[in-house]
Amino acid sequence: MSTTIIVPESRNIVKGKTVVLGNPRAGGMKKGIAIMDFILRLGAIAASLGAAASMGTSDQTLPFFTQFFQFEASYDSFSAFQFFVITMALVAGYLVLSLPFSIVSIIRPHATGPRLFLIILDTVFLTLATASAASAAAIVYLAHNGNQDSNWLAICNQFGDFCAQTSGAVVSSLVAVVIFVLLIVMSALALKKT
Amino acid sequence: MSTTIIVPESRNIVKGKTVVLGNPRAGGMKKGIAIMDFILRLGAIAASLGAAASMGTSDQTLPFFTQFFQFEASYDSFSAFQFFVITMALVAGYLVLSLPFSIVSIIRPHATGPRLFLIILDTVFLTLATASAASAAAIVYLAHNGNQDSNWLAICNQFGDFCAQTSGAVVSSLVAVVIFVLLIVMSALALKKT
Repeated sequence: MSTTIIVPESRNIVKGKTVVLGNPRAGGMKKGIAIMDFILRLGAIAASLGAAASMGTSDQTLPFFTQFFQFEASYDSFSAFQFFVITMALVAGYLVLSLPFSIVSIIRPHATGPRLFLIILDTVFLTLATASAASAAAIVYLAHNGNQDSNWLAICNQFGDFCAQTSGAVVSSLVAVVIFVLLIVMSALALKKT
Repeated sequence: MSTTIIVPESRNIVKGKTVVLGNPRAGGMKKGIAIMDFILRLGAIAASLGAAASMGTSDQTLPFFTQFFQFEASYDSFSAFQFFVITMALVAGYLVLSLPFSIVSIIRPHATGPRLFLIILDTVFLTLATASAASAAAIVYLAHNGNQDSNWLAICNQFGDFCAQTSGAVVSSLVAVVIFVLLIVMSALALKKT
């Protein structure tokens, strides 16, 4: 009878149907990770939606104009900013759709399927969010500082509000990126102890 | 005695020391993943080193000059490109240092420690590599196309070689990013089946 005592986890598979019981302590840690995962996802939704909205509404028209030309800057002007708006909207949409899987992880802390699904898609959308945040940051930096060697002048002197709004959007997207990294690390930790 | 038969995996824990046996099929799959992991890491080292070297040697001086000014473009001119060189060198260095852990995963396919360590650091360096690749891509795009609204002119007409070299570096870094995503997905799959 001693063999039944040294079996570490009481996982019973009956004809392909997995009945997961687990020991209470590991289950509690997994449940805690799953709840944290859900809360962080809500935060990431707010950050990415805020970034998309802030960038999407950035539009400034200068109060002076010449006969042929009116000075206007909006996110449409820069392809990196267009990419940013589209990507952040996609990321927010993915995060909303991922909430049910996060809830499944809370209800069944030992199920590896939803976690694996989430970690793979999180990695893909982390890449997407990081790429859009970094390319927008590069343009925002140029708009603030300009570049001497290529004769690109800083435009933030004229388009101050536009610059402030796009900078805010970039910061918000970086928050989303940090949350994504945390989500992946937490999912990996939860997967390991199964 | 029927309880010992329905235990799914033959994992025996004797006083805290884990003796992992595993079934041979899953071990073979894990070993395959670990070998693939090692090969992909070699590819990523080549891609990131190539990107850093290509960007770091990009330097073009135009054959004409005025009395006060000589036209020169190098990666030093753009802070995004400087960031790119530093980050790609860091990523290549990390990948070289991660090779021993990958080898440990090949020798001991069931050990979760090295895999967990690699998946967490891979995520961090994926973010770093993606950020540098995307910001450099945004600048390369601007150099090729310019921007009408902010009056930034395309410089690739003058600095053709410089543009070609930096574009090549960006493409090489994107290869490294794709390999990183594959590495993380493979590590997650290998962690799951433990």
